[in-house]
Amino acid sequence: MKLYERLAREIEDLIAQGVFRHGDRIPSVRQASQHRQISITTVLHAYMLLESKGIIESRPQSGYFVRLPASMGGNTGGKIETELRTSEPIAVSAQVDVSRLVLSTLRSIGSGSAIPLGSPYPDPKLFPSDKISRYGSAIVRRKSQWGVTDELPPGNPELIRQITRRYLENGEPVDPNEIVVTVGATEALNLCLQAVAKPGDTVAVESPTYYAMLHAIERMGMRAIEVATHPSEGIDLGALSSILDTTRIAACMVMPNFQNPLGFQMPEEKKRELVELLARHHVPLIESDVYHELYFGESHPRSLKSFDTHGLVLHCASFSKSLTSAYRIGWAMAGRFHEQVEKLKFLNTLTTPSIPQLAIAEYLKNDGYEHHLRRVRKVYAQQANLMTATVKRFFPEGTRTSHPMGGYVLWVELPPAVDSMRLYQLALDNGITIGPGYMFSAANSYRNFIRLNYSYTWSPEIEGALITLGKLVAACMAVSRA
Amino acid sequence: MKLYERLAREIEDLIAQGVFRHGDRIPSVRQASQHRQISITTVLHAYMLLESKGIIESRPQSGYFVRLPASMGGNTGGKIETELRTSEPIAVSAQVDVSRLVLSTLRSIGSGSAIPLGSPYPDPKLFPSDKISRYGSAIVRRKSQWGVTDELPPGNPELIRQITRRYLENGEPVDPNEIVVTVGATEALNLCLQAVAKPGDTVAVESPTYYAMLHAIERMGMRAIEVATHPSEGIDLGALSSILDTTRIAACMVMPNFQNPLGFQMPEEKKRELVELLARHHVPLIESDVYHELYFGESHPRSLKSFDTHGLVLHCASFSKSLTSAYRIGWAMAGRFHEQVEKLKFLNTLTTPSIPQLAIAEYLKNDGYEHHLRRVRKVYAQQANLMTATVKRFFPEGTRTSHPMGGYVLWVELPPAVDSMRLYQLALDNGITIGPGYMFSAANSYRNFIRLNYSYTWSPEIEGALITLGKLVAACMAVSRA
Repeated sequence: MKLYERLAREIEDLIAQGVFRHGDRIPSVRQASQHRQISITTVLHAYMLLESKGIIESRPQSGYFVRLPASMGGNTGGKIETELRTSEPIAVSAQVDVSRLVLSTLRSIGSGSAIPLGSPYPDPKLFPSDKISRYGSAIVRRKSQWGVTDELPPGNPELIRQITRRYLENGEPVDPNEIVVTVGATEALNLCLQAVAKPGDTVAVESPTYYAMLHAIERMGMRAIEVATHPSEGIDLGALSSILDTTRIAACMVMPNFQNPLGFQMPEEKKRELVELLARHHVPLIESDVYHELYFGESHPRSLKSFDTHGLVLHCASFSKSLTSAYRIGWAMAGRFHEQVEKLKFLNTLTTPSIPQLAIAEYLKNDGYEHHLRRVRKVYAQQANLMTATVKRFFPEGTRTSHPMGGYVLWVELPPAVDSMRLYQLALDNGITIGPGYMFSAANSYRNFIRLNYSYTWSPEIEGALITLGKLVAACMAVSRA
Repeated sequence: MKLYERLAREIEDLIAQGVFRHGDRIPSVRQASQHRQISITTVLHAYMLLESKGIIESRPQSGYFVRLPASMGGNTGGKIETELRTSEPIAVSAQVDVSRLVLSTLRSIGSGSAIPLGSPYPDPKLFPSDKISRYGSAIVRRKSQWGVTDELPPGNPELIRQITRRYLENGEPVDPNEIVVTVGATEALNLCLQAVAKPGDTVAVESPTYYAMLHAIERMGMRAIEVATHPSEGIDLGALSSILDTTRIAACMVMPNFQNPLGFQMPEEKKRELVELLARHHVPLIESDVYHELYFGESHPRSLKSFDTHGLVLHCASFSKSLTSAYRIGWAMAGRFHEQVEKLKFLNTLTTPSIPQLAIAEYLKNDGYEHHLRRVRKVYAQQANLMTATVKRFFPEGTRTSHPMGGYVLWVELPPAVDSMRLYQLALDNGITIGPGYMFSAANSYRNFIRLNYSYTWSPEIEGALITLGKLVAACMAVSRA
């Protein structure tokens, strides 16, 4: 039995013995931590376990309390109230212009020493940067004469071999001749979208949407139509079907696995249905699968591409979320649009830099990618729980959170009165960054939402930042009432 | 007096003494080299000096001969016949679709051990790759925790500082806030063009044109109009002015310094006129200045941007031709279009990889960039002469060459009967690559032209390859006559 399980059991026993009675406030996380000389993380873990069993509950701004058993008329834990609902965007195609906001936000997130809850990147401390760099240095020493022609599209042959092998290990055989190496998934998404649609066309996206999708649409002067999206199952097929029946859609862009910001994993059967729905309408389906390696479940989630029998799925991925963000290596597998994507890659950036390609290829060949991923997945899963519990505890009533099934971001709905841009500014003044909801919609649909990053190693600083954030949310509400 | 000058003097003396009489064949380069135990390079140098003085002449396939003095009725050295003329493209805007040809050509150029006369890249042996790599490794060791936000557009601040300093050293003060770091000049050109023109627009280019320009036009589905271009002074301002008067031109794209493939340097006064002409028409002027560091003259040539007073010049450059091709670091300074270019950079590839940016910044800060360049310039200037002389000597009559004033490519006009694609194939079969003229025009205007790269250290293999090429050209002519 682990330490946190033992602590949970102890508290359960204390309740059973009547030491704590229903309605009683139990010791705060900090008190318990100091008192028992165990880490805050362990205490939080224990409290979350008790909460999930319905034995205690957290009350915003107050602490943890022993629950009245349901059989005795206790509430049901606020289950309905704290759950996100399916989004209800207005299905009108809109011009996209979010990049200025995103760029200025990312800049402030990167500057100085602020607590990076708003960062889109995973904590680099968990990445095997040193190992990859060593491969990079060795390659540089070994091969001092660089030809650039080796790296012409589709990309470095050894890296393509290693990417192919990785798909095979994940149970998804792919054709190496289909892979085109790109400057991150950003370029892959851009090339795929440019291959299938032209300026002025309308593209269907999830709501909320990962802003990389919105950027690709904005870059080409296209229009976005946001589709209702279920917080744990993904894009609403009924809503999408209606749109396809009534509007000329040039492409659909989604993240089937651990969508940013919602963190859901589309059920496998729904993935198949989505692929088939679009194929029936002859609409290309672009998927960003950059988080696929970061699953919390038992097995690797399938890509939409693995369900594709028509060559209509264009699959984009990268190493930026799972191995190293600094190298900017992504790739596309574009089905029947392969030739066009390869040509566009050549036109767009000529080649992807060599050394990062070779360094990653060497790492994949020789080192423990799977081992690294297992560790990261476990840490992220734990920290997802810790952050969810902390937000539930310290944020005002009316706050709802996503239930990430992978990846490293949490989507938080704040009470309607809160403007996330104002909160973002207040947080920044307090040395904390957050991702304001505005970044995730072309139609400003997520005014009172924020995205939080839980990839950073849990610490008193992060817990403190969340407590501060909770107070700032309350302050925003008070201002709004005044 | 240098060795080759001494040799030239000796031969001059021998002619004066009547040992060699006019019309006599003098010893072949090889014979003279063996006989005197001096290098082929030195002999070629000496012969070129004598040729430039009008004392000897080379006859295709035959060798060097003592000239009849002009006063005695000798020909004028074929000056008119061997000079390239101003191009005369048909001024009709055309769709652009050259990238497939260029990509397949570059691929074959890069594969295997062929003599890389067709390569677009400088000989990597002359590059300080080891030094830059050492900086790269050191950075990687020093900074194992990568944030990506440091590199968000406009790019790494230290690299931007070093680029600014370099412009200052070259006598061209620039505003560091205008610099946006890109994935090579390729991306810079793309972003600049996208910032000022839209699909369907017409863009004026030189003729022949560097294919990177054609790619940028093709990428956005724009049209190109090719403008008459003087082989040593650049784009014809009269022709351009007529086009501007009659056609809606969205932008003009040129290489003012050491244009690829012609190698000219626009006279400074003509640069000013070009900038003013376009400003009068309110047409943005995009310049690729990637060869500016590789001048053969006394001083650094000015950029078009340095003449700009309206913010209408968009300046693109990179380190790929002068420092390292493998790192893919370029930049744009886009005048009044700066904000748009910065935004498009963010949309296109998010960030430029960090390590290459930092490694180059460190090299520029600490090492002998100027020293490296001085060496490279001298070598390229010598090899330009060697290759020109060799082509003149071994290629059939009717061959004309450019007179590069910088950079590392020679543009060769072959007799009209020769199809450069056929020559390209024959050359490839003989282990030699060349750049077929087709790559340099959207209108297939350069059927009987080739581009040769003289950056590779002169060797018997390269001389041999040129001799073989000369024979293949002759063979192409024979086939065409048959």
